[in-house]
Amino acid sequence: MLINPMLSDDGKLPYYIQLYDYFKKEILGGTLPADTRLPSIRSLAGQLYISATPVELAYQQLVSEGFIASRPRSGFSVQPMHDFSGAEAAADPPESQSRMLIQAVLPITPRDPQKYVYDFHISKNDFSLFPHKIWRSLFQEQLANPDLLQYGDPQGEPALRASIAAHLRQFRGLHCLPEQVVIGGDQHLLCSLLGHILPGSNRRLGIEDPGYHLLPAAFARNGYEIIPVPLQEDGLDIEQLRDSGAGAVYISPSHQFPCGMIMSIAKRHALLDWAATTGGYIIEDDYDGEFRYHGRPVPSLQGLMENSPVIYMGSFAQSVAPALCVHYMVLPEKLLPAYRNLARELYLEHSASRLNQIALHFFMERGHFARHLRRMRLLYQKKHEALLQAIQLYFGDHAAVRGQGAGFHLLLRLVSSVDARRLAETAAAAGIRVTPMSYTWWGESGAEAHRNDAPEFILGFGAIPEERIGEGIRRLAEVWLG
Amino acid sequence: MLINPMLSDDGKLPYYIQLYDYFKKEILGGTLPADTRLPSIRSLAGQLYISATPVELAYQQLVSEGFIASRPRSGFSVQPMHDFSGAEAAADPPESQSRMLIQAVLPITPRDPQKYVYDFHISKNDFSLFPHKIWRSLFQEQLANPDLLQYGDPQGEPALRASIAAHLRQFRGLHCLPEQVVIGGDQHLLCSLLGHILPGSNRRLGIEDPGYHLLPAAFARNGYEIIPVPLQEDGLDIEQLRDSGAGAVYISPSHQFPCGMIMSIAKRHALLDWAATTGGYIIEDDYDGEFRYHGRPVPSLQGLMENSPVIYMGSFAQSVAPALCVHYMVLPEKLLPAYRNLARELYLEHSASRLNQIALHFFMERGHFARHLRRMRLLYQKKHEALLQAIQLYFGDHAAVRGQGAGFHLLLRLVSSVDARRLAETAAAAGIRVTPMSYTWWGESGAEAHRNDAPEFILGFGAIPEERIGEGIRRLAEVWLG
Repeated sequence: MLINPMLSDDGKLPYYIQLYDYFKKEILGGTLPADTRLPSIRSLAGQLYISATPVELAYQQLVSEGFIASRPRSGFSVQPMHDFSGAEAAADPPESQSRMLIQAVLPITPRDPQKYVYDFHISKNDFSLFPHKIWRSLFQEQLANPDLLQYGDPQGEPALRASIAAHLRQFRGLHCLPEQVVIGGDQHLLCSLLGHILPGSNRRLGIEDPGYHLLPAAFARNGYEIIPVPLQEDGLDIEQLRDSGAGAVYISPSHQFPCGMIMSIAKRHALLDWAATTGGYIIEDDYDGEFRYHGRPVPSLQGLMENSPVIYMGSFAQSVAPALCVHYMVLPEKLLPAYRNLARELYLEHSASRLNQIALHFFMERGHFARHLRRMRLLYQKKHEALLQAIQLYFGDHAAVRGQGAGFHLLLRLVSSVDARRLAETAAAAGIRVTPMSYTWWGESGAEAHRNDAPEFILGFGAIPEERIGEGIRRLAEVWLG
Repeated sequence: MLINPMLSDDGKLPYYIQLYDYFKKEILGGTLPADTRLPSIRSLAGQLYISATPVELAYQQLVSEGFIASRPRSGFSVQPMHDFSGAEAAADPPESQSRMLIQAVLPITPRDPQKYVYDFHISKNDFSLFPHKIWRSLFQEQLANPDLLQYGDPQGEPALRASIAAHLRQFRGLHCLPEQVVIGGDQHLLCSLLGHILPGSNRRLGIEDPGYHLLPAAFARNGYEIIPVPLQEDGLDIEQLRDSGAGAVYISPSHQFPCGMIMSIAKRHALLDWAATTGGYIIEDDYDGEFRYHGRPVPSLQGLMENSPVIYMGSFAQSVAPALCVHYMVLPEKLLPAYRNLARELYLEHSASRLNQIALHFFMERGHFARHLRRMRLLYQKKHEALLQAIQLYFGDHAAVRGQGAGFHLLLRLVSSVDARRLAETAAAAGIRVTPMSYTWWGESGAEAHRNDAPEFILGFGAIPEERIGEGIRRLAEVWLG
């Protein structure tokens, strides 16, 4: 029996709630069957390097709800639930019984058990305008097509690749043909493929610091050395990139994550020049490039030059729904032969559900996607304005904002000497989720070097309903400013 | 403009048809716009290392169908199609027009453009008994649930993990709790994660030779040395594995691919003993373990011992449908902490469509999956018998069969001195797909060492309808035996 709660230190949830959630889930899920003895308060606290109090609070709560019982001299043990985990491999329980039990104990659990009252999560979506009816009817239409059960094109459905290419040409200014688009069910898979087809002679990847870490973490795991490069007012410090000897660089030029600057046209040209002189590659992450609230969207870097050495990364997670698992990259023509060789070498199959791919294709092709983006942009713009106004109203001179004007978040810097992590915990205790900026510095040393910065937070406005924004910021100011 | 047809040498399609298909697709897809000059026959043939004849035949066919034209002194060039690729990034074509054009030129194309008259493909499914109605209604039910658009559990839906664990315990004899199941949208992704969590000190993977190459290819790309280990009558040569110094081994013990033997219980124990003494890990691929046509299914190796150092790999591609992109692995408990750390380090998100995961969960939980497997087993058993009988009838002493009794294919060895590849080409020209056994030897040297073996072929019976099997084998015998 493995008792191994993973405690998160990001300040979003107090330890005792994390522990309570963990045990409840494991007990309901059958991993901790009836009569399992739990570790003593002291020993679990020791194992987790935390104080005894959160463990004690969690156990008390579990006792009061009947999940565990405290017995004299034998400590805490699990109470009998539906006896799901008792089924032995060899026993072949009657099918109907086993079915019933699974149904009884396994509700579909969301990823994030705690419900925040005010959730300024950095990347959740607002589904209030989602065109559910159109979406359902697109799926229903495709469910009637039995051909879609078969293998699909390993590179992604040709129809969806064409829709993506047309969309990117029209709305993001890319130079893009369908054959350049590679669709994948997962961003790590795409990163891993990309890591294999980039020139192997230079395995150093420059990244923006602070920045978004999913892709760099994947490259690091695939043998790349990650080189954090600092930012200037108008984006990445190209001189430092040049000095770093990196062979590729990962950037978010349309709206830097998390600081929000747009990379200046001078920098864009300097970056392309760096690539031309060094043979380097540029990985352009454009996850929120469609969302700009003043003026026109900033065109992509990829489209600035024909046959540019830019890999453009995109996704439907933010613009449609994360549950789809449809991501893509647009490869420069000169990387296509390497991709095709790799696909043969690895026996690649398609990795995104064909149903989702085809439904998305028709969603785009019939104009629903462009319409949805327009409506979402207006909605997010209103939420963005509401957030700015509320911060001005309730924080006044006690805070400064940057990174506004685009995307799904902004940065709030507090005039305070309190540690950002403690402030985030205080907010969480009041039911408010905010994310400390330290989340975006690469590595221990990066976070360490900025430990004495004024506390700064990423406030996302995707998840929180428009009408709660003002109230949430008012509460946050109350909690923090007293 | 990149003109780079990938010619396949597996003998399934003549070069001229591959070339014709390639150009037609690129022209219709807009990659080769009107007036593009094609390379001369001679230069394309030279680039591809083939004779001029196939190129000439392909060009002739394209001219006759109006895709290209031959002009005096300027060679071959593309004829005007729907002007899809002409849209400039900057031009913002009117939306309605661009939509219409995409629709006109992009039918949903299948992976495999050639339709064989008799398709003995090694891994395609038979959908004749697929419960389309139940399947659609499960999806329709879930489409009404807007929560399923949000992020899911990165490890896979807890409900589906529980259904998988229950199924594997009951039908494959595994020791398996839901927390051990990791669901992924792609097998490479799972392989890549697994490569990261196996002990890093020994990056040598033993594989069955001959065997299935997708997973070894993925491990090879992730820095593993692949060590081919020969087979004996009852499975992998454990002594040679022991001598090889491998730190992990990849096997298909229930029905070896492609030779079909069941690993003997003595070998299974020896293999577990190897793992215990060396600290090695065993990766068990059980892709067709549910399909045995005489007697009971062979229980999994994983279930032979509690807490065995076995990673069990499974998928719904064969048992339900490849289009779903739902695969999984069952990790030993002792690898769970490493997996969880990795998931945090890489910011893992779920990689399989949540809709597909939940639909599959209910498909299993309501008993449809077990019922479907029973019906499929009977269907495949009948096809398997029909294939054996037809081979006996039409080939008699001219061929020998092995690997029968389970799964979706058997091996046919021909008494002949003709090269297997040439025989496969002859069959393909007659509309019959068979796959030379050489496909399953690891590396150039493996294939080379067996070049003088009697010609042997993998005949899959998944794709071909039952009623065509006899006819297909009769034709094959005609073509080969004359």
